[in-house]
Amino acid sequence: MKIVDMHVRTFTYPSRIVRDTEGHTHPGPEHEATQSLLTVVTDDGATGYCFGAPNPAVLENVIKPAIIGEDPMYRERIWKTLHHWQRMSRDLTDRALAAVDMAIWDLVGQSLGQPVYKLLGATRDKVPAYASTMCGDEVPGGLSTPEEYGAFALQCKERGYPAFKLHTWMPPIAWAPDPTMDIAACAAVREAVGDDMDLMLDCYHFYSRADALHIGRALEELGYYWFEEPMDEFSTSSYIWLADQLDIPVVGPETADGKMYTRAEWLARGASDISRGGVSDVGGITPLMKVVHLCEAFNVQMEVHGGGPGNLHALCAMNYPGKYYERGLLHPHLDYEEVEPWLNSKTDPMDNAGNVHVSQAPGLGWDINWDYIDAHTVS
Amino acid sequence: MKIVDMHVRTFTYPSRIVRDTEGHTHPGPEHEATQSLLTVVTDDGATGYCFGAPNPAVLENVIKPAIIGEDPMYRERIWKTLHHWQRMSRDLTDRALAAVDMAIWDLVGQSLGQPVYKLLGATRDKVPAYASTMCGDEVPGGLSTPEEYGAFALQCKERGYPAFKLHTWMPPIAWAPDPTMDIAACAAVREAVGDDMDLMLDCYHFYSRADALHIGRALEELGYYWFEEPMDEFSTSSYIWLADQLDIPVVGPETADGKMYTRAEWLARGASDISRGGVSDVGGITPLMKVVHLCEAFNVQMEVHGGGPGNLHALCAMNYPGKYYERGLLHPHLDYEEVEPWLNSKTDPMDNAGNVHVSQAPGLGWDINWDYIDAHTVS
Repeated sequence: MKIVDMHVRTFTYPSRIVRDTEGHTHPGPEHEATQSLLTVVTDDGATGYCFGAPNPAVLENVIKPAIIGEDPMYRERIWKTLHHWQRMSRDLTDRALAAVDMAIWDLVGQSLGQPVYKLLGATRDKVPAYASTMCGDEVPGGLSTPEEYGAFALQCKERGYPAFKLHTWMPPIAWAPDPTMDIAACAAVREAVGDDMDLMLDCYHFYSRADALHIGRALEELGYYWFEEPMDEFSTSSYIWLADQLDIPVVGPETADGKMYTRAEWLARGASDISRGGVSDVGGITPLMKVVHLCEAFNVQMEVHGGGPGNLHALCAMNYPGKYYERGLLHPHLDYEEVEPWLNSKTDPMDNAGNVHVSQAPGLGWDINWDYIDAHTVS
Repeated sequence: MKIVDMHVRTFTYPSRIVRDTEGHTHPGPEHEATQSLLTVVTDDGATGYCFGAPNPAVLENVIKPAIIGEDPMYRERIWKTLHHWQRMSRDLTDRALAAVDMAIWDLVGQSLGQPVYKLLGATRDKVPAYASTMCGDEVPGGLSTPEEYGAFALQCKERGYPAFKLHTWMPPIAWAPDPTMDIAACAAVREAVGDDMDLMLDCYHFYSRADALHIGRALEELGYYWFEEPMDEFSTSSYIWLADQLDIPVVGPETADGKMYTRAEWLARGASDISRGGVSDVGGITPLMKVVHLCEAFNVQMEVHGGGPGNLHALCAMNYPGKYYERGLLHPHLDYEEVEPWLNSKTDPMDNAGNVHVSQAPGLGWDINWDYIDAHTVS
C-alpha cells in the first residue's frame, strides 16, 4: 500500500461565527465561510480524510514530495520526515502536520476496518465532556456580564454537562483584561451551578505573575478544578513559580510550541500539575499519544485540548486518562448541537449524562455529506 | 471480538545450554529442557502466541479472570488491569505481563493481517545487530581468557556483525569479578577487531562506584561505544554520579523494576546517557513503546534489551531509534543460527551485512513447528 495522491477541496458554507481583531470567535451575522477537506489516496484505492487542510503551497511543495510513495503504515517515519522538514519550512505548521497525520490514521483505520481508538489500544468508548465557552463579549444576553456566564453555566448543567470552563474577557474589549471581572464571573458561575459541577478558568493568556497568583487564589476559594494558561507559556519559569505556590492544578502547556519535547520539559521541571495538548497543538494523533505516554510515566494527568475526532479517539486510548473532552466553543446565541453542513452527524454526540461517544465506524468516523460538499465546492 | 480462552502447552526439547549457580547461561552437555507456549483465543477463532508462558497458577488465578471477555483491541485497558493486579500478586511478574501483551499483539496483528511493527507505526524493516556474548567461563576455547574474547569477536565480525558486546566473568567463578580482567578482555577485543566495530561492555552488575569509574575510563581509552550496568541499578544516585563524570555513554536502566516510571525518573535525573529496556523488563510491547516515546521526547537514545520478535517489532517502529538489535547470547561452542526445534525459521534472521530483518507475516511472525510441538508436548 503506497500513498499516490493528496488533494484538497475547498467549499463554502453559511456561518454565524466571526473573529474579532485579536482572533477570538464570537456569534455574528450569517455570512459565507469556507472549509477545506484533505484527502489522502493509496494505490489500492483506500482514502483518508481530515477537515481543515494545510495551505495549498505547503501541500504541493513540501508535504506531497515528502510523502507520495510512502506506505501509510509507516506513520512514524512519515511524521518524522515532516517534523524535520518544519525546520526548513516554517509554513509547515503543527496544525498542517496534524491534518496529514489524522488523514493517514483515518485511511489506516478504514483500510483495516477498525476505529482509530482501537488501533491505538482502547481504554473506553465514551468520555465526559466539559462545556467550553467562547471568550467574553459585549453582546446583551451573551457573555457580557458575570451573571450571563452564570445563567449559561446553569443551562449547560441542565443539558447534562458535568463540567464548565469559562474563557473570559480579552482585548480588543476596551476594559479587558481585568482580574476582578474574571473572578466575578467565576464566582457567579459557582453561585449559579452549586458545588456539584467541575469548573475551570481559561482567562487572558498574558497576565503578570502577580495577577495570575491573585486569580489562582480566588479560584481555590471557589473550589475550581483547574486554572489554565494565565501567562505566556514560553516562560516556563513563570509556570514553575506559579504551580509551586498554588494548590489548584495549573494546566499546560497548550499553545507553547514544541510538541512532546515541551511537555517533557514541563514535566521534568514541575511547571504544571496537569499537562495539556491537542492534535492541532502537537502535530497529530501520533505525537499526542507520545505526550500521553510521557504523562503516564510521570503520573501526571493529561487534559486534551480541543475537540474533534482526533482528540476523541486519543482520549479513548489513554491509560492515565484525561478526565474530560472539550466540547465547544459554546455561546448562548449559538446551537452547538446543529450538525455542520458538510457532515451527516456530529463527530462528538453527547448523551444526557454528558458523555461524548466515539464513533465505532472504521477510521476516524467522519460521516461526510458528499452531496453538500459537491454542491458547494469552489476549488 | 472477545478473548474466550488462554492456555499453555509445555513441551520438551534437547538443549545444550545450562545455568551456573548464579543463573548465568553457558554451553553444556545436551539434556532435555522444557519450553512453554501461551495461546490466546477469541470468540471468532483468532489466536495469538507467545513462547515463554506465565506460570500456570498465575494464569488461572489472576490473568484469566482479569482478561477473559475483554476485546483484544482494548490493549491499554488490559495492560493496566494486569499492572494494577501486580500490586496484589507479586507472582504476576513483568515477564508474565510481557508474554500476555505479546500474545495479544500477535493475535491483533494476525486478525488485521498486519505485522505488528506496522500497527505500531513503522520506521524501518531491518535493524543492525550486535553480537552479545554469554558471560565469561573457564572452558578452554570458550570465553575463558581475554584472547578468546578477541578471537570470538573477530569471528563475529567476519559473520557480518557491525558490533560486539562482552559479558565478562562473574561469580560463581572463584576469581571474579575482576576489573583488571574485564579491561584486559575489552582491550583484547579492540586489538582483535580493529577500530571499525562498535564495542560495548556489560560486566559484573554489582561493582562499587570506584570500580565502575575505573573501568569506564579504560573503556573511554579503548573507544568503546557504551558501558552497561556496572552497579546495582536501584541506586539511581550511583548512576547520576557515574554518568556525570564519564564521557562514554552509560546505558540503563535494564533490570531495575518499574517499567516506564523508572525510565522517566532516570531521564529526568540524568542517570544515564542512553536509556534501556526490553519487552520482558517492562511488561510487553505496550509499555516498551511508552519508554520509546518518553526517550524521544527527551532526545535520549533508547537501546532495546534482548532479542525476540517483540523487541524486533518495537525496534522497527522507533522514531528515535535504538541503534542495535541484541542477538544472542552467543558462545564459540554454540551455533546461534540453528533454528529452535519448535520453530521452522529464526525470528531474527541476519544477513551478511549484519541486519536483522523483521517478519512481514501478520502478527509477530512466529513460524511455529506444530508437528514438533505436538510430538513433544508434556502438558
